[in-house]
Amino acid sequence: MPYNTTLFDTYIEQNRDRFLKEFGEFIGQISVAADKRGIPEMADMVVERFQQLGATVTLYPTPGSPIVYAEIGPQDAERTLMIYNHYDVQPEDPVELWETPPYEMTIKDGVIYGRGTSDDKGELLSRIQAVEAWLKTQGELPVRIKWVVEGEEEIGSDHLEDWVRRYSEMLTADGLLWEGGGYDEAGRIQMGLGCKGIAYFELRCQGPSHDLHSSVAPIVPNPAWRLVWALSTLKDPDDNITLDGYMEHVASLSEEEWASIDAIPMEFETIRERWGLSAWLNGMTDHAARRRYFSAPTITICGIQTGYTGAGSKTVLPAEAMVKLDFRLVHNLTPELAETLLRQHLDRRGFTDISITPLGGDGPAKSPRGSLVERAAIAASHDTWGKEPMMYPWFPGSGPMYPLSTLLGIPVIFAGATWHPDIRAHSPNENIFLKDYFESMRFTASFLSHFAAEV
Amino acid sequence: MPYNTTLFDTYIEQNRDRFLKEFGEFIGQISVAADKRGIPEMADMVVERFQQLGATVTLYPTPGSPIVYAEIGPQDAERTLMIYNHYDVQPEDPVELWETPPYEMTIKDGVIYGRGTSDDKGELLSRIQAVEAWLKTQGELPVRIKWVVEGEEEIGSDHLEDWVRRYSEMLTADGLLWEGGGYDEAGRIQMGLGCKGIAYFELRCQGPSHDLHSSVAPIVPNPAWRLVWALSTLKDPDDNITLDGYMEHVASLSEEEWASIDAIPMEFETIRERWGLSAWLNGMTDHAARRRYFSAPTITICGIQTGYTGAGSKTVLPAEAMVKLDFRLVHNLTPELAETLLRQHLDRRGFTDISITPLGGDGPAKSPRGSLVERAAIAASHDTWGKEPMMYPWFPGSGPMYPLSTLLGIPVIFAGATWHPDIRAHSPNENIFLKDYFESMRFTASFLSHFAAEV
Repeated sequence: MPYNTTLFDTYIEQNRDRFLKEFGEFIGQISVAADKRGIPEMADMVVERFQQLGATVTLYPTPGSPIVYAEIGPQDAERTLMIYNHYDVQPEDPVELWETPPYEMTIKDGVIYGRGTSDDKGELLSRIQAVEAWLKTQGELPVRIKWVVEGEEEIGSDHLEDWVRRYSEMLTADGLLWEGGGYDEAGRIQMGLGCKGIAYFELRCQGPSHDLHSSVAPIVPNPAWRLVWALSTLKDPDDNITLDGYMEHVASLSEEEWASIDAIPMEFETIRERWGLSAWLNGMTDHAARRRYFSAPTITICGIQTGYTGAGSKTVLPAEAMVKLDFRLVHNLTPELAETLLRQHLDRRGFTDISITPLGGDGPAKSPRGSLVERAAIAASHDTWGKEPMMYPWFPGSGPMYPLSTLLGIPVIFAGATWHPDIRAHSPNENIFLKDYFESMRFTASFLSHFAAEV
Repeated sequence: MPYNTTLFDTYIEQNRDRFLKEFGEFIGQISVAADKRGIPEMADMVVERFQQLGATVTLYPTPGSPIVYAEIGPQDAERTLMIYNHYDVQPEDPVELWETPPYEMTIKDGVIYGRGTSDDKGELLSRIQAVEAWLKTQGELPVRIKWVVEGEEEIGSDHLEDWVRRYSEMLTADGLLWEGGGYDEAGRIQMGLGCKGIAYFELRCQGPSHDLHSSVAPIVPNPAWRLVWALSTLKDPDDNITLDGYMEHVASLSEEEWASIDAIPMEFETIRERWGLSAWLNGMTDHAARRRYFSAPTITICGIQTGYTGAGSKTVLPAEAMVKLDFRLVHNLTPELAETLLRQHLDRRGFTDISITPLGGDGPAKSPRGSLVERAAIAASHDTWGKEPMMYPWFPGSGPMYPLSTLLGIPVIFAGATWHPDIRAHSPNENIFLKDYFESMRFTASFLSHFAAEV
């Protein structure tokens, strides 16, 4: 469905100052989910901005941050697009490293600074402004839009899945446009069709009621040893996962999937240098490393604490041992399944004394190649940047795609214009390029038109 | 060699106030080896006190605290007794828990309070005063005494072994009287013929140059996993040590040794309750637990630190992992041997990337039954308390007996009067019973006479 790009671009140009002023207001409203600062105020601000568009907006309370849900566009549109964004941001710490006030929009040399500029207020608002520009210059929207804007993305989206399950009948759509798209150092547009899932667990083992003198070791169970023995049964020294049943839920990849992974550009030498590595794990080749990086599920020890860990020696037998484990999930693995398998695995080996506390997670998401959203995003990439995007079959990171994409069965595309290689998301001096802020509007308009028109 | 106990006891009684005044001066002189406070001053004070006895005293400098070495008694005495004590003390922390000033002698309800009262200034000085009382009331000493008083016992006696090796020709003796003897809750006199050795190591494994996002786990070596895998090869889940070659250096015990262990009274139920345990390791019986407690070598995880260990979840792949290990050594195991075996064991399994830093240690000491010092101590126990002592074949703890006893081949006895069950050594409100302070003098005199006379 072609649209009048001249009118669209002119409108954006004419409203440039107001759009940026609105962006400044979004940045100025603190909305830190971690300590709940400004969350209701920010949610209200998003509701109001959707109302200005003429959208039907509902604020859904959750046990955490409320979810803003907006619908706009013809009720009888042939296609429905779901869009996902979030209005919460990371804390500003360490605040002393900011060169500009974190909650004040500062524009300098073509860069907009402030907490949330790129993650994710810039993309959220530029998409809203793109819809406004479409409505003002093209008339009716070419699709129905269902917009989910949550307020807990930065702390694990703990209440999104329950909400999705509850309102699944309302949440039908033909495709899902995700947040956070961008490009790499070489200017290659990065798009993706999913991501790995994640499950995070804390395991604890109790020993004596307090640290004992280590001379009692011959007769007192040591929780540190028990944890080491239990952990050593989960993965072997060749890095093969040996957790009972885990790998049965991991399908092998198709030739097409391997090919799309092989095509992903990676600066292996640069990355190894940056990470201080002389070689990849087990000395694998770059080719093998790329395949494993994108495809493999993991069980990672993120941290262990037990006993005395200060300077010098202290002869103690620890009262407790704790490990934090991060499971990256692919294919059919879910956090619930991972927990069940882990519990059974430990019990089967007599480690019933080791407790498992789940600390959040999400299943994986993986959309099929050739979906409508993928084709629309590729076409919009050609329109906006004049080039073919790099299409990742999925990202090695994790995020809350699972409930909206996997659970609801909606193909997802991770695509957009706002993430350049130095956005410093989650860090001081978070920023977005001024040009990208407006390019995001053009990409959004093009995406809408192709999503409506692709056959 | 009987001696006139009436004269001896009367002298002690008559000099009671001066003896306590001297004790107050010893307590008043801070001598914390950990932070080197007052060490030279305390060493000088000990030298001076020996000189008052008429001893030949030498102050041997070491890279740490100096060693005070005194000889006294007839050059041509038939027998030579070596005595070991130390003049350093533990730090006074946490000082706010002291009910009296730590470096001021306070006598209250028959108890003398102050840092070092029991560990080990009380025993050191009461033994010196016993020698004075002998000289003043009996004439010449019945034996030659070689007295080693070190100033680093509380921080691992790191320089004692070198000194012993250097002066081994000077350090000949027929028996060695150790520091720290006492009695238990039931009033049973506890004596011992040795102790386990100890070796303390810190192992480190390096991963990437800094903590990475855990999504890179499929291709980046994780030092926490490597440490877990390495540790799991050292001991199996049934608590059997599987370190290559370690157990080959451990001889089995004789029937007589098992019998003397079986005879050691232990309040199993009380101890389990105090430690918060429902059962011993692997559910072993009390009988088996006592045998294992006294006889088994150990490898104990005292502490592990790696990655993120704060609240909640943080998805990191750690840059480093560290473990502190404590080996309790018996029979022919030494710290040097333990380190060599550990290095070879790790290398053989490809863990060449795990570094080992030794943090001190001592070999074990184990004197044969029936030695002169043992017989003298048993006889002195009958003289002093009118009862047979509990004779431990060795103690499950560790100490610097190895250089003076094992290396020099001198049978050792751990025996004395100053340790009651609530002395709070190393803790606030360290104390010694007033009566025990003087009983230590009587025990010492009796021990000297029996050591000279036993056939």
